[in-house]
Amino acid sequence: MGKTLGPFVPAPETATGAFFEGMMKRTLLVLICTISCFGGARAWETLAVSPPIPQDNPQTADKIELGKQLFFDPRFSSTGTVSCNSCHNLMLGGDDNRPTSMGVHGRTGPRNAPTVWNAAFHITQFWDGRVASLEEQAKGPVVAQPEMGMDNLDVAIARVRAIPGYRDAFARAFGGENPLNVDNAAKAVAAFERTLVTWNSPYDRWARGEIDAMTPQQVRGLKRFDQLGCSGCHQPPMFAGPRKPGGHFAVFPFHDGPFVGQYRLKDDVGRYAVTGRESDRHKYKVPTLRNVALSAPYFHNGAVPSLGEAVRVMALAQLNAGLDEREVADIVAFLRALTGEFPDITLPRLPATEGISLIEP
Amino acid sequence: MGKTLGPFVPAPETATGAFFEGMMKRTLLVLICTISCFGGARAWETLAVSPPIPQDNPQTADKIELGKQLFFDPRFSSTGTVSCNSCHNLMLGGDDNRPTSMGVHGRTGPRNAPTVWNAAFHITQFWDGRVASLEEQAKGPVVAQPEMGMDNLDVAIARVRAIPGYRDAFARAFGGENPLNVDNAAKAVAAFERTLVTWNSPYDRWARGEIDAMTPQQVRGLKRFDQLGCSGCHQPPMFAGPRKPGGHFAVFPFHDGPFVGQYRLKDDVGRYAVTGRESDRHKYKVPTLRNVALSAPYFHNGAVPSLGEAVRVMALAQLNAGLDEREVADIVAFLRALTGEFPDITLPRLPATEGISLIEP
Repeated sequence: MGKTLGPFVPAPETATGAFFEGMMKRTLLVLICTISCFGGARAWETLAVSPPIPQDNPQTADKIELGKQLFFDPRFSSTGTVSCNSCHNLMLGGDDNRPTSMGVHGRTGPRNAPTVWNAAFHITQFWDGRVASLEEQAKGPVVAQPEMGMDNLDVAIARVRAIPGYRDAFARAFGGENPLNVDNAAKAVAAFERTLVTWNSPYDRWARGEIDAMTPQQVRGLKRFDQLGCSGCHQPPMFAGPRKPGGHFAVFPFHDGPFVGQYRLKDDVGRYAVTGRESDRHKYKVPTLRNVALSAPYFHNGAVPSLGEAVRVMALAQLNAGLDEREVADIVAFLRALTGEFPDITLPRLPATEGISLIEP
Repeated sequence: MGKTLGPFVPAPETATGAFFEGMMKRTLLVLICTISCFGGARAWETLAVSPPIPQDNPQTADKIELGKQLFFDPRFSSTGTVSCNSCHNLMLGGDDNRPTSMGVHGRTGPRNAPTVWNAAFHITQFWDGRVASLEEQAKGPVVAQPEMGMDNLDVAIARVRAIPGYRDAFARAFGGENPLNVDNAAKAVAAFERTLVTWNSPYDRWARGEIDAMTPQQVRGLKRFDQLGCSGCHQPPMFAGPRKPGGHFAVFPFHDGPFVGQYRLKDDVGRYAVTGRESDRHKYKVPTLRNVALSAPYFHNGAVPSLGEAVRVMALAQLNAGLDEREVADIVAFLRALTGEFPDITLPRLPATEGISLIEP
């Protein structure tokens, strides 16, 4: 974990050093809180400079640019209206702010779109962790009938092949014979997605010693988040499940309670649908909390409308803890500190099909 | 026309000057063709540096940036899935390459999406010219039920108002009291659209004297286009109807023939639906041919799949002329010379609604 996900940064020690340089009252309070909460022992990791790069898919500029084009191109959906970016909107929090996404013909699927921001740090993909890599993930939505709705990947890649500019772009990115194929398309999209990292959230800056980067309320929220046990599953630096081989899955909801019926939390069987193992019923990958303030509504079915309510639901359903409103507000404030800085992205020009359309009426 | 749409550029004379500097055989052939076709008298206008800017909506950086955000933001459609860019895709030819667009819930409307590139040069908007300005146009799709599907503009602007970042952006762009309103939103979108100009097409470069910018086939195509009478309605520099007050409308199809039934060209009553005047039946605004190679399929109903077929249909239905395949190929080649250079656009960050979603389940 340490090598690929970055060093442990001992934030409280750094803050202690800063203390002797003289700081204002508010900073002092934050510092005291930080030390008393975490005792100088708890280390808060920040996001690594780069996500892990697979050996068989090194990052190159040509490949990333091609992946960006494919990511934004709606012509590989049956109706020509849905691209990766439709549901994983990079202008927003990397999702679509809908309970479940709307694909071709206005169809909706059963699950909430996970954010694509920082997805490269996950070791499994999809809510049920059914694939291990971004490369494998990229092939799924293209042929999902409520998403991009193509009959199969051969039909989809035939559309790519029909566009002269893509033939050139695949040759530049991959070389070799017949470079324009499904696996290379998935590799290109994955390479682009590995650039979608949001560094420098207030939390990251705070954890690197910039003690004013989080407000006192946010630090209080982090403390409560940690004390309650949220960080047992939502572990820094991704505030997602631990990076153990095969992935980390948690039963949700763990405890019964009023929210389970209210938000239909058990209607979905979770990872059981993938493995058929009874022990995987209602199990899900622990999603990242980075940029979680931007991705309402919440949970696998998107049934919970607000972040405050999501905090209440998690506390009760996972930890059997009732929170008062101040605790909820503090934790929400902390979660907002996980919103990072978004890189500038130039809109790609999509290669043309001159004088014809690939979309059937 | 001259002042706002740029100077008449006497391309043939410029070419004559270049002749004496010594040019290769191919260039000589082009030159002879150019002179013999157009006799040195026909002037070919190029696209002006800027489209006309209305006095009550001057261009400012803040307003253009706000307009870009609104243009790309899907949250003002009922489902949260459709933005201006969904059907007027700036990564492509400013449309969606569909016969008719697909809006919320997979609904489709009756007409093909016109390109937004260079739309700022038109003096009427929509196929039936029902409004005169980009500002008025921008309000239409938001409340069209097969497009963005909002109940009314008040509901739409309430969503904008619910996003803190937009409140700031409207204040910056417009100032004054209550700047966040429908009219200002439309002004911002229109201001952004006035930046969507594609200069320097091969035609424009050719018309400015860069005689090799068009191939001999393209010059031949332009000649035939002109001789046939296409340029009577598709006038340079926009290759759209003349900029006369109130707009210019043409009956389509003008002549009966096999294409009329084959492509259902008379199913739509055209401008008659707006004015109720019998003389407006099947009348349409003459669309621009700039970037036409990128906007298949063709015509008001998008029923004609290819540019070559569109040329055949127009020749027969409007000019009662049958073309041989070489003529069609030449004219198509010329039309490809109307594809311009597209400006770089940085993807906007859309202001967040932290912890909530504006989209109803």
